[in-house]
Amino acid sequence: MDKVKGFNCKDAFAAYCGVEIVEIGDGTARGRLEIKPHHLNGVGTAHGAAIFTLADAVFAAASNSHGHVAVAININISYLKATELGVLFAEAVENNARGRIGSYTITISDETGQTVALFEGLAYRKF
Amino acid sequence: MDKVKGFNCKDAFAAYCGVEIVEIGDGTARGRLEIKPHHLNGVGTAHGAAIFTLADAVFAAASNSHGHVAVAININISYLKATELGVLFAEAVENNARGRIGSYTITISDETGQTVALFEGLAYRKF
Amino acid sequence: MDKVKGFNCKDAFAAYCGVEIVEIGDGTARGRLEIKPHHLNGVGTAHGAAIFTLADAVFAAASNSHGHVAVAININISYLKATELGVLFAEAVENNARGRIGSYTITISDETGQTVALFEGLAYRKF
Amino acid sequence: MDKVKGFNCKDAFAAYCGVEIVEIGDGTARGRLEIKPHHLNGVGTAHGAAIFTLADAVFAAASNSHGHVAVAININISYLKATELGVLFAEAVENNARGRIGSYTITISDETGQTVALFEGLAYRKF
Repeated sequence: MDKVKGFNCKDAFAAYCGVEIVEIGDGTARGRLEIKPHHLNGVGTAHGAAIFTLADAVFAAASNSHGHVAVAININISYLKATELGVLFAEAVENNARGRIGSYTITISDETGQTVALFEGLAYRKF
Repeated sequence: MDKVKGFNCKDAFAAYCGVEIVEIGDGTARGRLEIKPHHLNGVGTAHGAAIFTLADAVFAAASNSHGHVAVAININISYLKATELGVLFAEAVENNARGRIGSYTITISDETGQTVALFEGLAYRKF
Repeated sequence: MDKVKGFNCKDAFAAYCGVEIVEIGDGTARGRLEIKPHHLNGVGTAHGAAIFTLADAVFAAASNSHGHVAVAININISYLKATELGVLFAEAVENNARGRIGSYTITISDETGQTVALFEGLAYRKF
Repeated sequence: MDKVKGFNCKDAFAAYCGVEIVEIGDGTARGRLEIKPHHLNGVGTAHGAAIFTLADAVFAAASNSHGHVAVAININISYLKATELGVLFAEAVENNARGRIGSYTITISDETGQTVALFEGLAYRKF
């Protein structure tokens, strides 16, 4: 089973929420989530926690891509634009992975390519 | 229908994930989430995004408690302790709600009362 | 030389900015900064970076209080209230210091006791 | 007096710390700070608050570049690499400036071009 399939099988909560990892590289990853009615919040837009769940799975895929276990220690997310039904995409880049702490930026965008949220994640790497 | 029931009905994603708001005060709120197998991550502990979803619902309940619509603009979460199956609790306090920006601290704890994560949320208030 | 004097002597930048640590406990610390004209920003209020510098020194004092070297890896600061000339106070509490990562909340307040800013710091502990 | 000179004159604390803004564009800015002995911390590396002060001035320059007053509401900074004496550079890009909230990423790098810290700033724009 390849890396991507393996990730999608093991992450129970991401799977429950409909998040799909589509690519894992060396310190990078990409994923998608189709926003359906059960992903909305009380004002009818995509729930911030659903957006976070998508980004968090992509963060986990990228930060664990080097073969070590890496666990999230801190995440900062800014919501830049409300969005409704449709597909959201998330892409992780690795800012730094020297030593114990890895830093990743995950950009979440909508179908028109506009940035919906910015997610900065720090992972602690267990060797 | 009271405030708490109303909140639980309207927040579709929180309901889908099993989050339950149990109390809403004036700038405060409390909630709970029973961590079940579908809330776990790839290493068998409660998923960071499930913990976030619980805290985010409590944040929304507290920041909207004054009767204005308040939307999340930034959240910072630190994960302090891994946890497994069992009930998680989250409680919001309001640090500030003067003007347009409200600041809330949400503490997430496990059944033994230990802090699992700390969530700082900023909301933009629409008058 | 005691802990507090030692800290104030060694932290060159905090000293240059006028920050004074006044107490160091077990995972805790308190400090003060008198805001003078050279601590202001372009709109005549206490500069966010001066407020940060005060809080950061208190964070360093608290996170290094156990006798290990601890270095800052992430800080999140929210500015809740503008303030002008006068004394600012900062106080650190330790949320967690198990294992490698320590979490601290530093509250910055003015002479009337109102919260000016909230600072969450994560430190990596070198054993 | 041009925009850059004006900014450097008005920001008292940045000037006191030796920060120099060198360019202001439309939602962007660049600055520099020569790290001297008084910018060091207790372990002899560039103080996190000095690095923050550089980035914060660049953030202010970029977020005020459109002619409105914009004030910082939240900043998240991750320290990726320790650095010693020498020049640090900071550059701001604007992620979003629709409506009341502007989001900016400031990258701080050393003379070799390596990233020293990542700073995410949110500003509230007063119209």
